[in-house]
Amino acid sequence: MTDNSKGLLVILSGPSGSGKDTVITHALEEMNGVKLSVSLTTRPPRPWEKEGEDYYFCTREQFQDKIAAGDVLEYAEYNGNFYGTPREPVEEWVKAGNTMILNIEVIGAEKVRARCPEAVSVFLVPPSMKVLEERLRARDTGENPEVIAGRLKIAERELGCAGQYDYIICNDDLKEAVKNLKAIIHAEHRRTKRQIGFVREVLKKC
Amino acid sequence: MTDNSKGLLVILSGPSGSGKDTVITHALEEMNGVKLSVSLTTRPPRPWEKEGEDYYFCTREQFQDKIAAGDVLEYAEYNGNFYGTPREPVEEWVKAGNTMILNIEVIGAEKVRARCPEAVSVFLVPPSMKVLEERLRARDTGENPEVIAGRLKIAERELGCAGQYDYIICNDDLKEAVKNLKAIIHAEHRRTKRQIGFVREVLKKC
Repeated sequence: MTDNSKGLLVILSGPSGSGKDTVITHALEEMNGVKLSVSLTTRPPRPWEKEGEDYYFCTREQFQDKIAAGDVLEYAEYNGNFYGTPREPVEEWVKAGNTMILNIEVIGAEKVRARCPEAVSVFLVPPSMKVLEERLRARDTGENPEVIAGRLKIAERELGCAGQYDYIICNDDLKEAVKNLKAIIHAEHRRTKRQIGFVREVLKKC
Repeated sequence: MTDNSKGLLVILSGPSGSGKDTVITHALEEMNGVKLSVSLTTRPPRPWEKEGEDYYFCTREQFQDKIAAGDVLEYAEYNGNFYGTPREPVEEWVKAGNTMILNIEVIGAEKVRARCPEAVSVFLVPPSMKVLEERLRARDTGENPEVIAGRLKIAERELGCAGQYDYIICNDDLKEAVKNLKAIIHAEHRRTKRQIGFVREVLKKC
């Protein structure tokens, strides 16, 4: 992807329980021109899921063709199904000057960063591991303690990757976290590389 | 200045008539922990001016001693008087995790950038040269047309330096411009280099 675009590609990562989904939902509600990337998957659609809204659905073969064609920015396999970020919808939306948010984990983030160096990456952290544990227990849907312990181990590993991101937001207070994500998006749109064309236009008319 | 500080040094430049003072005044009113740097000058104080509020006043000799000691981040001479940015108050305020705004022109900005590479620089541009001209005429206090023409020439030259700044804000709408400056300050505080210490603290307690 080119770097001349006025648009913005935002990678958002954070451990399970950091509140990524909630923060994104609020930011989307409060901002114009900001969309969440819809994933491509080989998992069969559930009856209520809509193509292009919940997921882009495709066969395993189609997914592999897209990977080969460079049309998947990052992907992973869970439970025998592929999940990935399709390049085209992201590129089109960003080229038009808008903001696309990718809600992806640290390995996917690394891949997108390599493919799209102009992407802005944000890591959401919990205020403490204790709070993270409490949040994971509170949303516990009957998992045994080992499952939560396993998630905490993964969270620890993920937090170790925070330094690879451009920004770090602590999600202690939801309102503050949303405000900070919005501020990052607003500020990044004001980056010189995204505004210098406008200054050139002003000067041309001198 | 060290780069480990959580605080922020913001350079704000823009041509005369771009609205720097008004944007700063509003941003200061709406944010905590943000101050405008007070300049050091050899100009004699006017009766209503307060030391440390309007300016830090000193003799020509004291000013030159401070320059020699590296205690002036940037300075210039106008009408036979020195004006500059004293290092110490800026450094102390920023070290404490706060934000200091320097309202300085492009040459001063270049000097501060060289001394403080961690500084974040913002350039304020008018929506067009026509609007800038109208603003300069509106605030005209009886200057002859040549004065305004001269200011426009300087503005043109300054706009040519916008590419050296980190961010560019167009001051078309005052409210939007203030919002953007605030967003940049909020976002820059979330930069990984200013937050990674917090993540390390969270991980230490694992």
